[in-house]
Amino acid sequence: MTPGKAKAGAEVVRILGIDPGSRATGYGVIDQQGHALTFVTCGVIRTSEKQLFPERLQEIYNGICEVIAVYKPQLAGVEDIFTAINPRSALKLGHARGVLILAVRQHGLLLEEYSPRVVKQAVAGYGQASKEQVQQMVRILLRLAAEPSHDAADALAVAICRASHR
Amino acid sequence: MTPGKAKAGAEVVRILGIDPGSRATGYGVIDQQGHALTFVTCGVIRTSEKQLFPERLQEIYNGICEVIAVYKPQLAGVEDIFTAINPRSALKLGHARGVLILAVRQHGLLLEEYSPRVVKQAVAGYGQASKEQVQQMVRILLRLAAEPSHDAADALAVAICRASHR
Repeated sequence: MTPGKAKAGAEVVRILGIDPGSRATGYGVIDQQGHALTFVTCGVIRTSEKQLFPERLQEIYNGICEVIAVYKPQLAGVEDIFTAINPRSALKLGHARGVLILAVRQHGLLLEEYSPRVVKQAVAGYGQASKEQVQQMVRILLRLAAEPSHDAADALAVAICRASHR
Repeated sequence: MTPGKAKAGAEVVRILGIDPGSRATGYGVIDQQGHALTFVTCGVIRTSEKQLFPERLQEIYNGICEVIAVYKPQLAGVEDIFTAINPRSALKLGHARGVLILAVRQHGLLLEEYSPRVVKQAVAGYGQASKEQVQQMVRILLRLAAEPSHDAADALAVAICRASHR
């Protein structure tokens, strides 16, 4: 997808949304100008389970650093998950979230964390919205020709949530 | 404590042990020359719960980077904990471990992970040893005048374990 252009007038603020995962970390970048949101980019940082875990952490860290270096967002949002997963999954997810938060902080972005419920509320008006509803609302709100993948859509949803909570 | 000196002869390898935690991360550095182990330094990176979590992660990361820069270890060991903690604790610990592992990898140290049982086995000959037994054995094995704090002793124990598994 190609970067959109925000309208002239109010200040444009660029926002990065992150949906952390040790296998797949979604990222999405949008511009906010007044109430207008414009899609900039989205994607997924994937790591292979064949790699050693420290290598995967480095790839996640390098991947998000590259996104920040290329697109230069000023604000960031990240999903905050503290429930409904077992300790082993929580620990793995924590490693990925840790290096992502470190990268965001090292680059001076203003970070906020949002629970999945708050993110869903912001994009779909309903805290229990399904993955598919979130995907569809992200497509509509950002006027995308096609629906992004789940991980990228979740990251864009976090970015939209960050924009609506400014 | 002041750095010790290893005997001349066999190559000296410097080893960093880490006991990760979001409040207190213990670190310990030892030199291994043949079968001889020599204490170099140990300490604890503490973060305050009053700080925002991203700041605490950055402090943990900066702290271990400083230890690596000053003492230049070639090998590292870190405690691997996957059991007996709730998802929320696991997630927090995961964040700390994630940035520590990233720092170790970015500095090119060869990292191994050990379960608490394996660490206790290596220093006390017994996988169910108590914290106090570990502290005492670390003091004896490294010929320390006083027992280091729990977190620092655990980190030195990981370093000793790393040395014994080379």
